[in-house]
Amino acid sequence: MPITTIKYYLREGLLPAGRPTAPNQAAYDESHVRRLRLIRALVGVRGLSVGAAKDVLSGVYAHEGDVHQVLGIVLGATTQAADGDGDGNQDQEQCKRLAEVDALLDSLGWEVSDDAPGKAVIARTLDTLSGLGMAYDWHQLVPYAELAGQIATVDLDKIEDLADPLEMAERALVLTVLLEPVLMALRRLAQEHQSAARRGVSPASAP
Amino acid sequence: MPITTIKYYLREGLLPAGRPTAPNQAAYDESHVRRLRLIRALVGVRGLSVGAAKDVLSGVYAHEGDVHQVLGIVLGATTQAADGDGDGNQDQEQCKRLAEVDALLDSLGWEVSDDAPGKAVIARTLDTLSGLGMAYDWHQLVPYAELAGQIATVDLDKIEDLADPLEMAERALVLTVLLEPVLMALRRLAQEHQSAARRGVSPASAP
Repeated sequence: MPITTIKYYLREGLLPAGRPTAPNQAAYDESHVRRLRLIRALVGVRGLSVGAAKDVLSGVYAHEGDVHQVLGIVLGATTQAADGDGDGNQDQEQCKRLAEVDALLDSLGWEVSDDAPGKAVIARTLDTLSGLGMAYDWHQLVPYAELAGQIATVDLDKIEDLADPLEMAERALVLTVLLEPVLMALRRLAQEHQSAARRGVSPASAP
Repeated sequence: MPITTIKYYLREGLLPAGRPTAPNQAAYDESHVRRLRLIRALVGVRGLSVGAAKDVLSGVYAHEGDVHQVLGIVLGATTQAADGDGDGNQDQEQCKRLAEVDALLDSLGWEVSDDAPGKAVIARTLDTLSGLGMAYDWHQLVPYAELAGQIATVDLDKIEDLADPLEMAERALVLTVLLEPVLMALRRLAQEHQSAARRGVSPASAP
């Protein structure tokens, strides 16, 4: 990590100062390194603002020993929040769709917090699909949800070997964020492969 | 669809004029409707520019009867292309990473076009993970790829009931694009549920 970046994090108050050892020097230890890695994941990888990263960090350090809390704070802070709608009619539609999302989660047996941002994302998409005239309801999301659940299992298995909650949070965040475009790219590559296979043709160069 | 939107598509040359029936009227048929739906998916849902949509449409209509070609053109046009790197060193790294992606695809038995955009996306992410000091190579992507492959199977099954390649392309495009945030939201909800379950806690409201 460039020294200028570390100095930036120090100036912004994201990283506490090290133990002073000389007029222009300070000593940093493993806890600073762990914090730095997490800051890098939040700001550099996830693109959070300094302010948002500070909020996440204070939450993380308030629950330091609690892996589930720490993961929740770190991963929850990084899901795109759905836009709020001020319109009354849209809120009615949104409530209807959120109820569909709850029905989906119940059918899967998934227990999540009431205000988990992902719920609103799914609700809005069901609404968009309906507006496009496609007959789509939550039942059709079940096979996708089951596969997403298996992906989450792979994700969580990958952090099991770490002992420190902060390290777990950093790795979980990096993998969750960085693998999103990879998962979507793999899905499209698989679509290409399978579509050709279904029709008995060889893939050609993209036109 | 608002009449102003249809007139916009006519003016931009995305939609051909209907059969003139009176000085200020024209008749449109089913083929116009199918084309309109596809334009809406490309421009309205996927956000392609008018020029990009025209390219896709001319390719689609050049291969009208061929489902695989049509799907390839429609879905291929909508994958985020990886940024090109002009730097020689980076090209070397990129080649090394692309070889890893090829090794991954070979191990899965997936046949895709040489220049499929998804390959570059995966290559760049492997590079980023390496730059973050995480020991990550293509082998660790195998379980994710297998699950992405199962997602693609669900996707393709959903268009099997359609007879017309243009309708198949429209539905494939809409589902592929609109379900991306849903899949990512489902993954995060599953992470929350499973993380709590692994530690034997109930999920709390997000802090």
